[in-house]
This record gives sequence, C-alpha cells and structure tokens, in this order.
Amino acid sequence: MGTSYDLVTFVTDYGSGGGFVGMLHAVVDSIAGARVRIVDIDHSIPPHDLVLGALRMERATSYSRPGVHVGVVDPGVGSARRAVAVEAGGRIFVGPDNGLLVFALEAVGGAGRAVSIENHLLPGRASTFDGRDVFAPAAAHLACGMDLDELGPRLARDELVRLERPAPRALASGRLELRVLQVDGFGNVQFACDAEQARMLGEAVWLTPAAGGEELAVPFRRTFADVPPGSPLLLLDSDGCLALSVNQGRADRLTGLAPGDRVTCRPA
Amino acid sequence: MGTSYDLVTFVTDYGSGGGFVGMLHAVVDSIAGARVRIVDIDHSIPPHDLVLGALRMERATSYSRPGVHVGVVDPGVGSARRAVAVEAGGRIFVGPDNGLLVFALEAVGGAGRAVSIENHLLPGRASTFDGRDVFAPAAAHLACGMDLDELGPRLARDELVRLERPAPRALASGRLELRVLQVDGFGNVQFACDAEQARMLGEAVWLTPAAGGEELAVPFRRTFADVPPGSPLLLLDSDGCLALSVNQGRADRLTGLAPGDRVTCRPA
Amino acid sequence: MGTSYDLVTFVTDYGSGGGFVGMLHAVVDSIAGARVRIVDIDHSIPPHDLVLGALRMERATSYSRPGVHVGVVDPGVGSARRAVAVEAGGRIFVGPDNGLLVFALEAVGGAGRAVSIENHLLPGRASTFDGRDVFAPAAAHLACGMDLDELGPRLARDELVRLERPAPRALASGRLELRVLQVDGFGNVQFACDAEQARMLGEAVWLTPAAGGEELAVPFRRTFADVPPGSPLLLLDSDGCLALSVNQGRADRLTGLAPGDRVTCRPA
Repeated sequence: MGTSYDLVTFVTDYGSGGGFVGMLHAVVDSIAGARVRIVDIDHSIPPHDLVLGALRMERATSYSRPGVHVGVVDPGVGSARRAVAVEAGGRIFVGPDNGLLVFALEAVGGAGRAVSIENHLLPGRASTFDGRDVFAPAAAHLACGMDLDELGPRLARDELVRLERPAPRALASGRLELRVLQVDGFGNVQFACDAEQARMLGEAVWLTPAAGGEELAVPFRRTFADVPPGSPLLLLDSDGCLALSVNQGRADRLTGLAPGDRVTCRPA
Repeated sequence: MGTSYDLVTFVTDYGSGGGFVGMLHAVVDSIAGARVRIVDIDHSIPPHDLVLGALRMERATSYSRPGVHVGVVDPGVGSARRAVAVEAGGRIFVGPDNGLLVFALEAVGGAGRAVSIENHLLPGRASTFDGRDVFAPAAAHLACGMDLDELGPRLARDELVRLERPAPRALASGRLELRVLQVDGFGNVQFACDAEQARMLGEAVWLTPAAGGEELAVPFRRTFADVPPGSPLLLLDSDGCLALSVNQGRADRLTGLAPGDRVTCRPA
Repeated sequence: MGTSYDLVTFVTDYGSGGGFVGMLHAVVDSIAGARVRIVDIDHSIPPHDLVLGALRMERATSYSRPGVHVGVVDPGVGSARRAVAVEAGGRIFVGPDNGLLVFALEAVGGAGRAVSIENHLLPGRASTFDGRDVFAPAAAHLACGMDLDELGPRLARDELVRLERPAPRALASGRLELRVLQVDGFGNVQFACDAEQARMLGEAVWLTPAAGGEELAVPFRRTFADVPPGSPLLLLDSDGCLALSVNQGRADRLTGLAPGDRVTCRPA
C-alpha cells in the first residue's frame, strides 16, 4: 500500500453538458466511497486546449492540498498515446501523456515515480472516454492507497511527453506579440505573459489586435477601480498573467479578442 | 427504519442557471447532513427531454454505487401527476411518475416496492419546484434510513407510467432513420441507436439529414484517431450509442444536426 | 475558539468558466479538509448584479443548515471597500461590504457581531480575486471554529453598507411597473414583485414591455398545467416572486424580455 489521500481534483475540457463530469464523480465515489473529497478545479477548458489545461493544473497545485490530481484534455483518446500516473511533491498526477501534466509536475519539484496505466481500467472500456474508464478509476484506487506500481509498468521521467510554455514573442519592429490564453465570464482577456515578461511593457501600452482593428492606448494599473468605469486597463490577474480588462465592463466586447488571437504591443 | 445510504445522485433538466441545483444540495444537506455524498450525474438534460433523462439515469446506474437516485425532468410539475419512490436492485429511485425512472428500474432488475410520495414535503411547497420541495427531502430522508412506506401509499408496479425507448426506424426504401438524441460539448452527434442496431449499417454509411442537405459518406471506426484530423466517422460512443464525430473537429458544425433532428442512412 | 460548522455555502457571479469556483473549493478544502460540506448555492448571478445576489443569499438561508455563508458579487474588488464577516441567527455571513449580505442578515434576525476581514488572507493576494484570497480562507477558518475577532477589527452594525430592495413602482396612470429580475433556463421571466405585491394585480393582467411591443393578456394561475401547452400565465414562482411563464414553452422568447427590462401591468 502507498499513501492514501482524501482529495481527488479534476481539470478537464468536458464542459457542463453531456453528463461527463457526473460520470467522473460516480466512478470515483463507487471505488473510494464518500470519504474522498472531489474538487472540480475546472471543466471549462476549451476542447483540446492542452496549454490552458496544463497552466490550470499548474496553478491549482498552489491552492490545493496534496491529493490525486487528474487532468483530462485528451484529443488522442483511443489512440496509442499512453495514460500515466506520476508522483511529484507528495502528490500524484494522473492523465494522458500528452504534456498536460508537465507544468504542474515542474511546479512541485519535477516528476518522481511514473507508470503507464494499464491495469484496473473499468470493464467494458469505451474508445472515447478514458476520463471515466481509465483516469477516474486509477485516481480512486490511488486515493485509497493503491501503490503506483500496481497500475502498470514504470516509465523513465524523460519518456513523458513535453509541452512548450507559451510566451510573448519579440518582433523585429521592437514590438511584443502576445497570444490570448482565455476570456473569462466577465470579459477579461488573459494573455500568455507573466509578471516578469509584462514588466517590459512599461506603464502604458499601445495595443493592436493582429487581425486589424484600431490601436488602443491602455494604462497598466493594479486593479479595475484604478480607472473610471467603462475604461480599459492592463493588470496582472489572479493567475499572475497580464490581462486586458474594462472597469465594470467587458474587454472582449471592446476589442473583439477571443482565445488564440494575437495582439502586438508597444510602450505608449 | 430501512437501509440507509450515503449517496444521493441527481439527473435533472435544471441547467446551471437560476440556482435550482444549489437548492437541491442545500435541502439534502439540511436533512441528511454532511455525511451523504451528493453526485450531480447530469443537470444538462434539455428542458423537458424525458427520453434523454431516462437514458442518462439508466446509464448512471452502471457507474454509481447503490444509493438514492433522483431524477427531475418534470413538465407536469404542479399538476396531478404523481411523485414516486421505487426500490429496485438495492437502490431507491425518486422522481415524477412520468416514465423518467423506468429505464433505470429495468436496468437493475425491475421495480420492487413503490410508493406515491405524499408525506415529508417541505413546508410552503411551491407549485413549480418539486425538486426542492418533494424529491430532495424524500431522497434525504430515505438516505437517512426512513422506510419507503413512511412517504406515502403503496403503488402497484404496473401503475407506474411507462416510456417508449427510442430506436432506429426501418424505412420502406430499405434505409434506416435515426433520431439525434444529443450533441455534446465537443460537437459529437449521438443517435438513438445502440451497438446491436448499429451493426445493420456495415462498415461505411451514406448519411443524409432528413431536413435536406448533402449526403455524406462516413466510415464506421473504433475511435477518433482512426481517421485523419478533420474527417468524419461513425463510432460507438461512451454511452454505447452510435455517434457521428469529426476527429479533432465538430460533427454538429459539419452537418448542422441538432437534438431531435433525423437522418437517414444506407450502406455505402 | 468559536462555534465550528461543517457547511460552507457560496453565491457568486463567477459563472462556470475560468476555474474561479474550483479555486474556492480548493482553498476551503486546503484549510478545513474534507470534513466540511461545500454547497454551491448559485454561481450564475449575472456579473455585478448585487440585487439578485442578495436575494439569492436571502432565499438560501431558508433552505440551508446554519453554516458559513459566503457571497461574492464584487464590482469593487481591489478598491477600498471592506471585506466583512457577520454573525446572525447562529450563522456567519462572509462577503464584500457592498450590501450583498444584508437581505440574508435581515432574514435571520439582523446582524450580530461584525468584523472587517484583515487577517488570515492568502499570501500573495491578487487584486482581482478576493473570493479566493480573502473570503474562502476566512470562511474555512470560521468553519474550523476560529473566532470572528481573529479576522479583524469590530464594525458597528450600522456601518454595514445597505441595499435597496427592488419593488414594483406605481405609475401615475394607475399601472404598475415591474422590473425583470432574472430569466431561468426554462425561459421563465421573474419580476421584482412578491406575493403580497402581486395580489394588487387581480386574476388577469394586461402586460406591456416598456420597450414597446404588443400588450399581452395573461391570466394569473397556480402552475403551468393550469393553462394549455403554449399559453402564457403569471404565477408565484418557487422564490415567491411573480413570474411570467409559458406552459411547456418559453416566456422569454414570447416576449423578448431579459433581466433589467421593465413591463407595465394593468388589471384585465
């Protein structure tokens, strides 16, 4: 027996429709019982957006207790891609071997023991729902203290698929190109740009959507209330990323920006 | 006292808005305390879609522990339709007597004791929210070990309202007509057609939306990755139903198909 | 040590995207462990809709056990507005001091001890997510029995920011003007008008959208099934508010009404 956990967390792109999330809960509960807390960190990752899923898993480790942390953003489900379980920092991470787990693993000190999940799958495994048939049962068994090695053969740490961390791109013109990572329910537009990278921008920025559209002058402030209602600002958001917001308004509507779009910036 | 349970599950058409689901949790918790696990199997059943709700309840029994399983898809709320609690296969099913529970009851061996819920309703019962005022309190009391008979008078098993299981329809032309059951967040289009029925279709299919639109040639494969990215395929999905998908794309956008639409199929 | 609670509830405008709700759960769980039940009363309050959030918190107290009840609808996050924790009726309410809590406080007998939350914030507090960094940790500590006074200095009850309760407005013409509070997933249109106020309307009503549109004759009935399928009716909904509905249909589509819109009524 290994360590047992009373926490299982999920990050997926399953959304709220189709009953996928409910099945994850039912399976974890059916194996581990009511003792284990299940926390739905985020099921709103856009379909197949590995990078955003990986960043969310990384952030969540800062705020959650050690537990079994499952990620499922899995465009290769049903193919030969591996399913893995990896120990790191007193936690266990479970998911497809497609890079989804790697930022979180790094955040807690790097991968320890890793295995390819090949045992204890649900009987009658479907070809399109490994969250239910592979990852949830593995997570539940691990939460109950099953040793990692019971799930399948060991993997060397450097066999795990890697993922490139998104970052601003310096253009020849001296401008900075930023990619939109996500837009939240308030219309805040988050860029792939961390606090240190954002420091290059100075106290105000001219910002131009790469798809065209008017250049917009935006001050860099601490919070929404630092500009008048309806005015745009740049700030460091709660994920530690640069974000474009409008005080009591919607930056997505102001700019038309959506996930995956690019903007260029120059100091104002 | 009857058996007690530490699991209450829900399938409803309440959606994520309006705070309906939160009230179900609050009521179950207020009666049964923190001891009982609440699993939200699915609250995304389209409003009043009894058939999809009944199929979801049926599927969920395969993946959840024995517990009190509540379904609320209830266009007749406030009318004279009965509220029922039914024992079957070591579980208890609770919901409106409109057919919603019957597939699940059959899946675990058929209805045992059944009662009409007339007692232990919340005081101040509204005319439009029996989930909160009738079904959640009944489920919580049952989870705590209350005997079924305390909820109201016995019903004979054959008094329960039935529901027709959707199925493909053989057309005079030799074609097969399929109805779209649901479209999930990835754009996969699920048909009312199980594995055995799907076997009639052979290895590839010409598929035509009944509303018109171009005939589409689609191969029958095991999983998404068996066709190139962007290509359509038919597969058996994780509910065991025939589904139309696009590898790393959206079958709903390719075809314009939505729940309730019909397509005709012929072998290719 | 104060009283401990095994229930933490949330009402927010965070929606289902962006992973905000998951972070609340992770933080409460990381401090209070799996022992505490977390109930998501409602995260679908429209962004910054203080009044609807305050009404939802008020209603929820009737259906939930005493616990720590958190509300976060917080357009002033990051500004100088206070964060507060307030005892009332054997419960503790936690949220921004912007009126969000006041209807709930009144519903359970009025505010008792109140403090400004200044201690036990998460380290590295962001400027835009006090739900995670201020309110969730405070709630978790309170659930574990921390005394209110450990969170910060006392506030006098009359220092708490107040909020005006929405109500019908009597027009000079003798008509009544009603404001749309919310539209649920079934298309039911809820008005800021309680049972007593609705009694002024009589048994049937001519209803006109303030923005123009045709006058509509609507009977006042007990439930949907009291009119033919497809027909509109007024009823008292499960929040005790006047609502416009269509039996097995959608009142929002029939009328074009949306939250914040106004209608005028006269007896028919």
